[in-house]
Amino acid sequence: MFRIVVDVMGGDFAPEAILKGAKLALESIPEVFLILVGPNEVLKTFPYSKQVDFLFTEEYVRMDESPGEALKKKKRASIFLGLELLRDGVADAFVSAGNSGAVVAGSIFILGRIPGVRRPAIATLLPTLKEPMVLIDAGANVDSKAYDLYQFGLMASLFLETIWGRPKPRIALLSIGEESGKGNQLVKETHKLFSASKLNYYGNIEGRDIYKGLVDVVVCDGFIGNICLKLSEGLAETILEMLKNEVKKSFLYLFGMYLSKGALKSFKKRTDWREYGGAPLLGVKGNVIISHGKSDAYAIKNAIKQALQFAKIDLHKKLERAIEESLLEGEKVEE
Amino acid sequence: MFRIVVDVMGGDFAPEAILKGAKLALESIPEVFLILVGPNEVLKTFPYSKQVDFLFTEEYVRMDESPGEALKKKKRASIFLGLELLRDGVADAFVSAGNSGAVVAGSIFILGRIPGVRRPAIATLLPTLKEPMVLIDAGANVDSKAYDLYQFGLMASLFLETIWGRPKPRIALLSIGEESGKGNQLVKETHKLFSASKLNYYGNIEGRDIYKGLVDVVVCDGFIGNICLKLSEGLAETILEMLKNEVKKSFLYLFGMYLSKGALKSFKKRTDWREYGGAPLLGVKGNVIISHGKSDAYAIKNAIKQALQFAKIDLHKKLERAIEESLLEGEKVEE
Repeated sequence: MFRIVVDVMGGDFAPEAILKGAKLALESIPEVFLILVGPNEVLKTFPYSKQVDFLFTEEYVRMDESPGEALKKKKRASIFLGLELLRDGVADAFVSAGNSGAVVAGSIFILGRIPGVRRPAIATLLPTLKEPMVLIDAGANVDSKAYDLYQFGLMASLFLETIWGRPKPRIALLSIGEESGKGNQLVKETHKLFSASKLNYYGNIEGRDIYKGLVDVVVCDGFIGNICLKLSEGLAETILEMLKNEVKKSFLYLFGMYLSKGALKSFKKRTDWREYGGAPLLGVKGNVIISHGKSDAYAIKNAIKQALQFAKIDLHKKLERAIEESLLEGEKVEE
Repeated sequence: MFRIVVDVMGGDFAPEAILKGAKLALESIPEVFLILVGPNEVLKTFPYSKQVDFLFTEEYVRMDESPGEALKKKKRASIFLGLELLRDGVADAFVSAGNSGAVVAGSIFILGRIPGVRRPAIATLLPTLKEPMVLIDAGANVDSKAYDLYQFGLMASLFLETIWGRPKPRIALLSIGEESGKGNQLVKETHKLFSASKLNYYGNIEGRDIYKGLVDVVVCDGFIGNICLKLSEGLAETILEMLKNEVKKSFLYLFGMYLSKGALKSFKKRTDWREYGGAPLLGVKGNVIISHGKSDAYAIKNAIKQALQFAKIDLHKKLERAIEESLLEGEKVEE
């Protein structure tokens, strides 16, 4: 049994979607033990079983709240109490679809960073034309420095080796041209660090090639990474919406689309972020999964499944050892 | 007759695609007079008519060349000679699908900036679920300052009022959250400038809402704008490719798609960047259109059509007057 803490009050559709997701997980994943954190009022309706426990707290962090403020004033918020269970060894992984800034700040403050890591980062799995890849950082940091971006690449590389056994993942730096001279000041500096490292550095990659599956890891500052992710989701929705509007113009088109709806369905499944469930926060001393704010029950179930996978191998400890080794091997580039 | 200069050596498919595009333009747009700039060898095959003239030069800027170097060493490159024709009043607009950095640098150096403008910016038209909107800056600048972003918004706003008569365009700042406190340092500073201005400021907008048509102008640094544009193109291509792969799995799906191919076609037309032809470089003393590097003949024809539209109203002079007025009205915020 692995014990996964779930923040019941996190996400745009909390608590209903989270509770439903937790039920789905209990029904379909036998090895999971859930610790649900949230208000008594909310949790008292949840069916009790041998696979579930509750931690009651009335406080929680709102989606639009300042993480720093919350950390100071809401010591008993569901996110922070949940992370304390992780720190104290009562649980093996933590899942929240709530205020991601508060999860990041809370993880750093309560769990602490892995020695050698300056800034933890969110590693999001994305589908491509070939294998899925990792975008890092998806929004834990803004205004990162070159050395931070370099560490994001190192962490994502070790993560892919650990989780999927991908040997020597290819790492690319997101920029506005493939030539090494192109980009902003930050990219130019980071390019030098990667080039001098032992990592399997591919070079710069342009926005248009992200989804082609040319590399295993795309590195960028969290401000850009978050915009790219949300732009992708919004654009995919808009494209389907525009297509629908065109199809509605004729019965023949509608009939044609009806015939090929199986293809649309399996396409949707393949590109659905909900299939991935959540993104690990790499660089902190604990298995923390940050789920999408718009998570529904299905996404939460998948996030719990992923948390279980990370708990089984104790991802953060593997990452800690890998980072230690790579630092010993001289992978630490001058800051 | 309006005289449009076309750089025959600019773009990934130059000179063939550019020559074909010029021919298409001459066949379909009666008011246009083209001045083609390029090597004798290339231009000698072009059918001579009363609507065309040639400026021969052997030099041109390669797509991957450093703009600064080119400006220093290749004085007779097609881009620079073309811009000189604009400066000297021999032509009314300039079109190039070539090295956009060289077009920007050349425009600033040869034509000069509109008084009061610190950094010219590329304004790209994008389709949305509602009306098309402008993304500025699409890649003329990296590492912009807050005051630059503010000016990008001002220029795009005046541009939309001038070109489409849109009253008081809604301007949004691209960020990672709608709340005013969210974003990186640059966004937070720029947010203050827009809030203090007389512009119709909408506030922050997230990546997922860019294509929803909530605003008329989306402002960002050119590094991010360029990544967003290329990501959008790449993702749209990838989505169609993935869909195709799914459809191929069954004859029924294929047949269904065949029936609805009309809808796909009009969808494609609606979202095709080639329909817009090119993006104006706002803030320089001349009508400069920067076309997509991957422009084919159809895109070039549309860029020429757009250049004609800008030449007719003498866009850059209107913009110059509008900027002067808005500066007089106290629209100039402290730098």
